[in-house]
Amino acid sequence: MFEGKLERCIAETGGTLCVGLDPHPDRIPSRYPKSPEGVQAFLCRIIDETAAHACVFKPNSAFFEALGPRGMDALAKVIRHAHAAERPVILDAKRCDIASSAAAYACAAFDRLGADAITVVPYTGEDAVLPFVETGGTVFLLCAPSNPSAAAIAGHGDPPLYVRVARLGADLATRFPGQVGLVVGLTDPAAAGALDPVAATVPWLVPGAGTQGGDLAAFASAISPRRTVLINASRSVIFAPDPATAARTLRERIGEVFANH
Amino acid sequence: MFEGKLERCIAETGGTLCVGLDPHPDRIPSRYPKSPEGVQAFLCRIIDETAAHACVFKPNSAFFEALGPRGMDALAKVIRHAHAAERPVILDAKRCDIASSAAAYACAAFDRLGADAITVVPYTGEDAVLPFVETGGTVFLLCAPSNPSAAAIAGHGDPPLYVRVARLGADLATRFPGQVGLVVGLTDPAAAGALDPVAATVPWLVPGAGTQGGDLAAFASAISPRRTVLINASRSVIFAPDPATAARTLRERIGEVFANH
Repeated sequence: MFEGKLERCIAETGGTLCVGLDPHPDRIPSRYPKSPEGVQAFLCRIIDETAAHACVFKPNSAFFEALGPRGMDALAKVIRHAHAAERPVILDAKRCDIASSAAAYACAAFDRLGADAITVVPYTGEDAVLPFVETGGTVFLLCAPSNPSAAAIAGHGDPPLYVRVARLGADLATRFPGQVGLVVGLTDPAAAGALDPVAATVPWLVPGAGTQGGDLAAFASAISPRRTVLINASRSVIFAPDPATAARTLRERIGEVFANH
Repeated sequence: MFEGKLERCIAETGGTLCVGLDPHPDRIPSRYPKSPEGVQAFLCRIIDETAAHACVFKPNSAFFEALGPRGMDALAKVIRHAHAAERPVILDAKRCDIASSAAAYACAAFDRLGADAITVVPYTGEDAVLPFVETGGTVFLLCAPSNPSAAAIAGHGDPPLYVRVARLGADLATRFPGQVGLVVGLTDPAAAGALDPVAATVPWLVPGAGTQGGDLAAFASAISPRRTVLINASRSVIFAPDPATAARTLRERIGEVFANH
């Protein structure tokens, strides 16, 4: 189960850094061919170099799909490599469909690709999330995204939609303990503060550190210290001149900020 | 461009039937192997048998992904087969991410797989939809889904979120004419009625006919006759004993209902 693996790896690495594997084709070092095999080799090296500091890896399905059909082979192999390094994997795929299609997406993510968890967009509501957790997998529901224009939709209504989504997550978590988390962007500490009272035991996956410019300290001060908060960095780690150092530095910074808040 | 192809095919087939290609593994006729190649052969035959009645085909990415990495090869070949039958293709993938990832999904759908249009979930707002239309592709924004529990999220707020999404679609359509549509489920005529005044020239893709039990006449009477309404049927056509007859019957029924309302 994802939860147990994650707890072990947080203890092993001494932190809650998630390294996002987003292989933007224009930024992969030129010594790797721009093929599915080249991307796979690059990312397997990133996993080897950063696993001591990353409690979990998060490959982004979009960039593997953009490599064409053989990109999915590369994705499966990258996930196997993370498992060989004894790290769990969240497949960042943000799937969203009706229940019968969601069951097929769950099969793809968990059975075919071997991911431990997946990001899901709950626009279709509860019945479309159930197929993912009923198989024993873990979901992170997209709640408050990190991009600039998300507020117009995710913040719609009063209370904002993201609070409604967090309540859905809390409800699912009571029925599927350890199998439900939320995605809450680092870029909107006010949303994080509004979400904090909802489901304090549900872990958060937090994108927006690094390239997207989120402020760790502002975010940490907006929430209670009880929660497991996985801070994701993708481009700022994997394309750093020295990914191991970038990962260690960020892992240490996360530890300082969240220990002292 | 999708819009021109669609208009030609609506004229050729005399109707607005969209045939959804959702290869549920348990329901594919036993004479086809349960492999990516078997699914591909089955769906290519469905395309051949129903193209005279279907103005557009809509493969559902979930079921191809569930076949494992080689499933995406099958998907690419099924799309090529639809094009060989001179029909445009909406890839039903319901992608949703921040802009940099959305650009990768657009590359996957349009450049790698060759789809003409894609379904997108706009939970992340406008900046995450733009990469799809900026490449010249067409998007159908998931607005009012057809499944039972969608209303809790898609109907959140006042006005309901789906109205907010439709306004986003209308705004994008003024900047990218012919490249934006909405997904509005057949199962909720009240939502369709509320959405009808928004962006009357934006086409709708309407799932929920057939297996999901939507009522064509109730839906048609809730909306104005001006709009292009693509009625999708998947399981009820492709797993029918005679798919050609099922497609023709539904195409004729759609014509009657929408001509007389």
